[in-house]
Amino acid sequence: MAQVSSLNTQIVVDWGTSSFRAYNFGSNGKIIQRHQADAGILSVRNGAFEEVLEREIGRWISPSTEILLSGMITSRNGWIETPYALTPATLTALATHAVVLHSQRGAKLKFLPGVATHAPTPDVMRGEEIQIFGVVSNNESATIVLPGTHSKWAEVRDGAIAGFRTFLTGEMFALLKSHSILGRLILAGEQAFNEQAFRAGVKVVQAASSISLLNDVFTARSGVLLGAFPADDIQDRLSGMLIGHEIKAGLTLYQKGRLVLVGDPALTKRYAVALQEFGRTAEIGAADAAVDGFRRLSAEAMA
Amino acid sequence: MAQVSSLNTQIVVDWGTSSFRAYNFGSNGKIIQRHQADAGILSVRNGAFEEVLEREIGRWISPSTEILLSGMITSRNGWIETPYALTPATLTALATHAVVLHSQRGAKLKFLPGVATHAPTPDVMRGEEIQIFGVVSNNESATIVLPGTHSKWAEVRDGAIAGFRTFLTGEMFALLKSHSILGRLILAGEQAFNEQAFRAGVKVVQAASSISLLNDVFTARSGVLLGAFPADDIQDRLSGMLIGHEIKAGLTLYQKGRLVLVGDPALTKRYAVALQEFGRTAEIGAADAAVDGFRRLSAEAMA
Repeated sequence: MAQVSSLNTQIVVDWGTSSFRAYNFGSNGKIIQRHQADAGILSVRNGAFEEVLEREIGRWISPSTEILLSGMITSRNGWIETPYALTPATLTALATHAVVLHSQRGAKLKFLPGVATHAPTPDVMRGEEIQIFGVVSNNESATIVLPGTHSKWAEVRDGAIAGFRTFLTGEMFALLKSHSILGRLILAGEQAFNEQAFRAGVKVVQAASSISLLNDVFTARSGVLLGAFPADDIQDRLSGMLIGHEIKAGLTLYQKGRLVLVGDPALTKRYAVALQEFGRTAEIGAADAAVDGFRRLSAEAMA
Repeated sequence: MAQVSSLNTQIVVDWGTSSFRAYNFGSNGKIIQRHQADAGILSVRNGAFEEVLEREIGRWISPSTEILLSGMITSRNGWIETPYALTPATLTALATHAVVLHSQRGAKLKFLPGVATHAPTPDVMRGEEIQIFGVVSNNESATIVLPGTHSKWAEVRDGAIAGFRTFLTGEMFALLKSHSILGRLILAGEQAFNEQAFRAGVKVVQAASSISLLNDVFTARSGVLLGAFPADDIQDRLSGMLIGHEIKAGLTLYQKGRLVLVGDPALTKRYAVALQEFGRTAEIGAADAAVDGFRRLSAEAMA
């Protein structure tokens, strides 16, 4: 039975910094088995990646099994560092640029590449491409926005990732909140989303008086000192400013076709609210777009 | 003799977070005495500011002495929090808005205000105004740039601070260097100024491909990953990008008249280099512009 299964299925492993997710797709694209563990690459000692793979999904594997691996497992700190597929990057190119290793019991391990672009500015992604291919279908064109620590705006043209830009938005917010003079006025603890303060932050960026992010963020402090708004507003006002700056820039590049937000629901909600202030609406893609991307990849690999 | 001195001189104390600087100006504007100590407000326990003042310059003080105090000693964490003088703010307004206290032995202590503006964006300064008044003369118009943790661009019109903007440039550089993913590629230890990398960073901001600071800073990392420039370049490239963004924004506001850089020589040099890339030249003001500002203030107070 195991033998039959391995011939007609495709195993995909999404192995990131902090988590390990595996899917076993049948030839009909349905997930036959799935497994998730806190076995990210940071938890793996002495490069014992193969032992961890066997421990987690060894029961799915036979000598004829082929496994696609994606995520930070393909980075410098992972099992093997794969090169990047250059834009325009297709789903097929990901499979073509995969680096192959054979496990000790003969399974074929295909490590997928990341995607890179040199122009107009150098940029890289490693993992987000799977989410992107999970949102678009063959030959489709769309703009996919993946909010996060390093937000991506990707332009998909005729089914290929034609270009993209990364914005340090999420990381910048964390830096300013945790380590800057602005953070000293932010109250500790979780806050409910203050939509009014968030929208006010977006409006700051849209105003004619906005000349630089470096100035706008300082006003989140000076405005409190001068009584323009309460200190409680700083956190979401700052979030609105940063996301507003990202969207203002992203929209200058990507004006046409579907605009799809993919990611954590609380975060895509913020982006949808900010886009509203810019008079734009966006689709919210499936939060598990990566699974759809892997499904397409596994179908491609089995074809 | 001390009595005579106190009638014809003006004592000024520049009391900051980490340092205490005092000047005794004669009626001719010459410094008669000066004193400096590591006695910033952070080192003063239990609000014992008067004891520290007596310890440091008590020998200059008599019951008829008048002392001007400026710097963080006038902030919430200082001896007394003074209000802000609003733009347009003149040298005279600083003296007018001073908050007066009498010391236990009768000396008159005048705590100077900071300067604030509400439009077009809320902004505050506390201390830089003295440097600004040290650079310009009566009724002069000029643009004064004070690079630093929180850089200021101030427009002086007819001798008054007409408006200003603060940019979080220096703090942002420190945050990115010390706490971000970019910092992980920056080598530890002091580096000599890499002017070529710095100019390349300024040019990134000037290129048509620059759409946002949030994207530009990420390319300082992705460019290294893709071999566009060495990791050694990141630090000064990043510095060039941040200062470039500040200058690009500042120049949209302040196009006419004298453009004067005031501050730490190594930092004003970077700004001068970046301005060169923008086709502009700037005067370098005296690094001790604050002393000239205090001289004007003391003359005003004695008048």
